[in-house]
Amino acid sequence: MSLNSIFQYFVPKDRKVFFPLFEQAANNVVAIATILVETVNSNNPATRDDLYKQIDKLENVGDELTHQIYIELGKNFITPFDREDIHALATAIDDVADNIQGAANRMNLYSIDDFTVPIKKLADLILQASIDMEKAVRELKDLKNVRNIADSCIRINSVENQADYVFDRAVADLFLYEKDAIKLIKYKEILATLENATDMCEDAANVMETILVKNA
Amino acid sequence: MSLNSIFQYFVPKDRKVFFPLFEQAANNVVAIATILVETVNSNNPATRDDLYKQIDKLENVGDELTHQIYIELGKNFITPFDREDIHALATAIDDVADNIQGAANRMNLYSIDDFTVPIKKLADLILQASIDMEKAVRELKDLKNVRNIADSCIRINSVENQADYVFDRAVADLFLYEKDAIKLIKYKEILATLENATDMCEDAANVMETILVKNA
Amino acid sequence: MSLNSIFQYFVPKDRKVFFPLFEQAANNVVAIATILVETVNSNNPATRDDLYKQIDKLENVGDELTHQIYIELGKNFITPFDREDIHALATAIDDVADNIQGAANRMNLYSIDDFTVPIKKLADLILQASIDMEKAVRELKDLKNVRNIADSCIRINSVENQADYVFDRAVADLFLYEKDAIKLIKYKEILATLENATDMCEDAANVMETILVKNA
Repeated sequence: MSLNSIFQYFVPKDRKVFFPLFEQAANNVVAIATILVETVNSNNPATRDDLYKQIDKLENVGDELTHQIYIELGKNFITPFDREDIHALATAIDDVADNIQGAANRMNLYSIDDFTVPIKKLADLILQASIDMEKAVRELKDLKNVRNIADSCIRINSVENQADYVFDRAVADLFLYEKDAIKLIKYKEILATLENATDMCEDAANVMETILVKNA
Repeated sequence: MSLNSIFQYFVPKDRKVFFPLFEQAANNVVAIATILVETVNSNNPATRDDLYKQIDKLENVGDELTHQIYIELGKNFITPFDREDIHALATAIDDVADNIQGAANRMNLYSIDDFTVPIKKLADLILQASIDMEKAVRELKDLKNVRNIADSCIRINSVENQADYVFDRAVADLFLYEKDAIKLIKYKEILATLENATDMCEDAANVMETILVKNA
Repeated sequence: MSLNSIFQYFVPKDRKVFFPLFEQAANNVVAIATILVETVNSNNPATRDDLYKQIDKLENVGDELTHQIYIELGKNFITPFDREDIHALATAIDDVADNIQGAANRMNLYSIDDFTVPIKKLADLILQASIDMEKAVRELKDLKNVRNIADSCIRINSVENQADYVFDRAVADLFLYEKDAIKLIKYKEILATLENATDMCEDAANVMETILVKNA
């Protein structure tokens, strides 16, 4: 065995493995969030049914990608970042997808056809945060534009604050004006799941900030 | 000091420590799940009261076992698997017990005496997943029958999917037909806690799959 | 470079960094819990509005402290305890603050002005657990009084059990006597968030117990 082939054996294929998986996962979240925005702005129940199915399908794709990252993490001795950060980032991205699908699933199960202003606003905020999450994830592979990652993370934090505010106001309004308890339960739960999706984007941003600090 | 006694010093007692604790914890979950199935199929309130107490007691036993695993993890320098996987597996098994007890506790507190078909189905699915979880845990100690562990994990995943489906249909039905909001809240929460127990079985299966990959 | 200055370079500043941050974070939780108790015992809506704002502000302070601990964890190669325990302890302390603020935020959003006995009891229990959590955290820096830490942790566990009991009774009573579903939802959620704050104190106690075992 030549020295070269020994080196080949040791040089980690980690970067080739992890970064494409992360980019696909983040990209998949943007796709799901885009369909969510389309869904809550559609007035056609048949169209929405189709969009709900697309969200379910993409959420499964996301599950597969997360699973693959975990599997690679088990196999790869050398990883581009600390193992716990890779695990936490993969989990956070997956949690965004889960919460978007969770919200869409509830809209579907509860036969929602009146998409209120706060629901639309939260869907927009989720899409915004997802786009910034994807941008930041793409920059992770070379860490050349650390400033860009930091800026995306700051914007995600700001979106999460806005989502908090929209959610709080919407829930307070529900308790003030909605007299039908069952309707209140439906809307409150959908709003909470949407708001939680932005929390998970913030989790992803926090992990990326930790990665920046460690690799500064 | 003879070489022998030095070796004795270094040879980890880890396997003797961790595997019996995991087996007891997994076995305890099967016991709790068995009582849960009995509970939701009993028409006698006095019997059910007794069964609720048994579930509480066994959940405490589970807490103790989990606690002991954590303590051993703190003491043992050498562990049979990665520390994070031991921690994650102990936590997942404990979470199954917690959710079963959480569901039973709500049935008790909300004075449920009408156990619906989806509740019974979910209890059956939890028992099924628990039995497979115990089987897989038992195989961990020698990893001789990797195929058996993988098969159990696949079955747990399939059970979790079925539980998801049962839960979604049951909640959609609640919102369609249950006009009493307070009753709806009760049943929805019990169904969600039961469904969550199968999610936690899936978490345990995922950890075991990671362990397989690392030790392949 | 003298040997001395080389040593200076290597001697970790970790203790100087982590312990003050933990003490501030734990102290901040006591401050938030103190205001919570004041809030639920106040009959003046204007006073309560002011107290809610104070809780929000302190919760932000807590977020900052947690964030700083995470950042330091990324920068410091040498840490006084295992990294995962530092992370878990910081997270648990932050979760206590989050849940107290979450409960207060709901009281505010739902315009609660009738603070029931179980709400007051839970607020008292949270304050008790927070005081013990701070005591234990203060002892971590030298581990001279291991007995004191263990005692605080035992008291936190006992408080959590009491909180469980208060919560269970209060929720059972709500389902028995509260006929207004929307009011039931409000109170149930506030009680659950308060009870969860004591769970998070228990999480912090569990981490500290793990630290004791590892450093015994």
